[in-house]
Amino acid sequence: MTKHFNTYSEPNRIAEAVEALAELTEPQRPFTRLVFSPEFSRARQWLQERFEAAGLECQIDAGGSLIGTRKAPAASESPGKIIIGSHVDTVPAGGRFDGIAGVVAGLEAIHFLNAQRIDLPFDLEIVDFLGEELNVWGTSCLGSRHMAGLLTDDILDRVDQDGRRLGDEIERIGGTGKPASGPRPDAQSILACLELHIEQSDRLETDQIDIGIVTDIPGISRYSITVTGSAGHSGTTRMEGRRDALVTASDIIMTAREIARSIAAQDNRHFVATIGRIEVYPNGAATVPGEVKMILDLRASNEHSRDMFMEQLHAASLETSRRESCDVGIERISEASVAHMDDALRQRLARSADHLGLSHINLSSGAGHDMAHMSRIAPSAMIFIPCKGGLSHCPEELTTPDAIARGSAVLIRTLLDMAG
Amino acid sequence: MTKHFNTYSEPNRIAEAVEALAELTEPQRPFTRLVFSPEFSRARQWLQERFEAAGLECQIDAGGSLIGTRKAPAASESPGKIIIGSHVDTVPAGGRFDGIAGVVAGLEAIHFLNAQRIDLPFDLEIVDFLGEELNVWGTSCLGSRHMAGLLTDDILDRVDQDGRRLGDEIERIGGTGKPASGPRPDAQSILACLELHIEQSDRLETDQIDIGIVTDIPGISRYSITVTGSAGHSGTTRMEGRRDALVTASDIIMTAREIARSIAAQDNRHFVATIGRIEVYPNGAATVPGEVKMILDLRASNEHSRDMFMEQLHAASLETSRRESCDVGIERISEASVAHMDDALRQRLARSADHLGLSHINLSSGAGHDMAHMSRIAPSAMIFIPCKGGLSHCPEELTTPDAIARGSAVLIRTLLDMAG
Repeated sequence: MTKHFNTYSEPNRIAEAVEALAELTEPQRPFTRLVFSPEFSRARQWLQERFEAAGLECQIDAGGSLIGTRKAPAASESPGKIIIGSHVDTVPAGGRFDGIAGVVAGLEAIHFLNAQRIDLPFDLEIVDFLGEELNVWGTSCLGSRHMAGLLTDDILDRVDQDGRRLGDEIERIGGTGKPASGPRPDAQSILACLELHIEQSDRLETDQIDIGIVTDIPGISRYSITVTGSAGHSGTTRMEGRRDALVTASDIIMTAREIARSIAAQDNRHFVATIGRIEVYPNGAATVPGEVKMILDLRASNEHSRDMFMEQLHAASLETSRRESCDVGIERISEASVAHMDDALRQRLARSADHLGLSHINLSSGAGHDMAHMSRIAPSAMIFIPCKGGLSHCPEELTTPDAIARGSAVLIRTLLDMAG
Repeated sequence: MTKHFNTYSEPNRIAEAVEALAELTEPQRPFTRLVFSPEFSRARQWLQERFEAAGLECQIDAGGSLIGTRKAPAASESPGKIIIGSHVDTVPAGGRFDGIAGVVAGLEAIHFLNAQRIDLPFDLEIVDFLGEELNVWGTSCLGSRHMAGLLTDDILDRVDQDGRRLGDEIERIGGTGKPASGPRPDAQSILACLELHIEQSDRLETDQIDIGIVTDIPGISRYSITVTGSAGHSGTTRMEGRRDALVTASDIIMTAREIARSIAAQDNRHFVATIGRIEVYPNGAATVPGEVKMILDLRASNEHSRDMFMEQLHAASLETSRRESCDVGIERISEASVAHMDDALRQRLARSADHLGLSHINLSSGAGHDMAHMSRIAPSAMIFIPCKGGLSHCPEELTTPDAIARGSAVLIRTLLDMAG
């Protein structure tokens, strides 16, 4: 007979934790807990208290991630490590579950092991990876990039519009603020990295499946696009002489969408392109815009589609730039190739779901995750749980405590399985 | 023999005043002195000290304008009034002369009259009209609108994104914050309102003319455009299902520009349309934009052109709204009809320029000015002085102390002329 998921994980305790974190938001803009913000620091403090109450040994690592460790018994010689983690930062006006569900699920594993007085033959780390969401410095997954040795000086030296240097912000919240010289020194001893996350799409909900086992995480590339025209008085600058940076940017936004649509239609695999962030200077109602800065976010599970998109966008932008007499600069901010999840770990997750009587399917991730970076240095895998309508990165984002408890039970079963 | 303009006005003193005000700016963004900002309050304080040092009696009127009065001698029975004014607020990242030149020129008149110990048979008011530039509440010319009885509850009750109510801000800097019940009570006794301003176009510079005498100020209409789509995760929201508010807004921005170009080409008179301000929500790089708010600024010296533009824009927006599955709302924020400058005053200004040996031509204004509103309640006129390349509302805005002194001399000659 299969055990019920509630044997492993308590939906009520999960609901309380999600609710507590949901309250740590910018008051005017739920649910907003940007990395390095006061709300983020409060969430970190709350989480560390929870970690300590559950007996975890806490530290902030060099890359600013919060790690709570449940040590293997002293008897174990050079025990391996298993990481369960996700993140508590959010996008602006985001949701209550993206990232949060994974951290709360990790904490459930600790509660279960403590209650059952189970000693695992490996260290178990519950991790709040720093700044998984894309920030104003144009880089996501700060914590996992650092652990994987991918956070470079070039990224850390970036300065936001208020003059804040990224490296200094990491230092301020307890990291070193220095680049990683390589993967974390104990990378060889990491047996598995596991992450639970809401699906952020509607496949599991539509097909009424409990668990998605992620096969791969798409390559994400980000580019900054800067359009430079001439600012001028809106009343006295004639239509014909204008070099309007916002009109030019608008042309690029529409063109990018058209190219993306056409590539997505040709490509059976996942391809999306988004311009979600735009800053206009001087942004005065009576001034012809002089400069526009935008961030282009590309997700492709196919490098050919990505390269074809950028080639077409470059060509179209050159054309637009000439026609509108504005300069257009496109620069790559970051690029990550497709990350494949570990086959053996995926099989273990599937066996755990079977053991619990939970339905499961394989899925490709649409979004990026910390596991994309962790997979470069250690066996990594992810499970998805259903969320309502696939909505995410918005306040309507919704999953249930039961769905999180089911996923958490799969993680716990997998830990027990790996303990032998 | 004509007198030299330097007999009336001192370029060095003008340069010092312009420089002093230029330093009262947001440090990171010259030249920025937004109405109600700390920099604006410091400029007001500086100006009041200068007014008082020149013997003017200072007050902030109900609409928040700073008025320095040089009284007619007590002997004069119910003397009339002449107003010389402009404004010291700026647009974001604006210039050193737009508005400032006119206030400084007014102060020059006081210095001349004091030095020459001339008593005028009318009160002379030097006015810093409150908030001439378009602000975040979507309304320009706060001070002159109030004097003309045009600042309504509807406008004063507007709240910005930080929750600041416009009326409260006016009260905070010394006005009543209440709507005008009608034109200022002594409107009947105003003999003339005069304003000196940089041209903000390049006609005077190109033709090497000293003074432009303004014939009319265009009608300015402003509309808020709100586009509502659906926010979503940039990685998991497929291209096909998107309701991207920024793509939709981009279509409207480009369409508005196309319609404006075609109307400007048909219309020999002045027509321009600008979308200079845009706010995107949530403006996260990894989120499909859910909402966009923009301000459309229209300037027409012809109401038919304005109406035709809006008709075409409404039709095109409806089409875009359907195609992109986003809601598009267009609402009028403000509208002012074309304002004609007073013929008799214009003739006096021309005679004064002739007297000083300064070249002059008639010009239509491209921009809006406080005199557009003052002309509804009293005889009003403006003179323009040349500015480099016609650039304005940008840091490159440039005129010379001599050009301001020439214009100031024309105003002073006109005062002496009206004194008889």
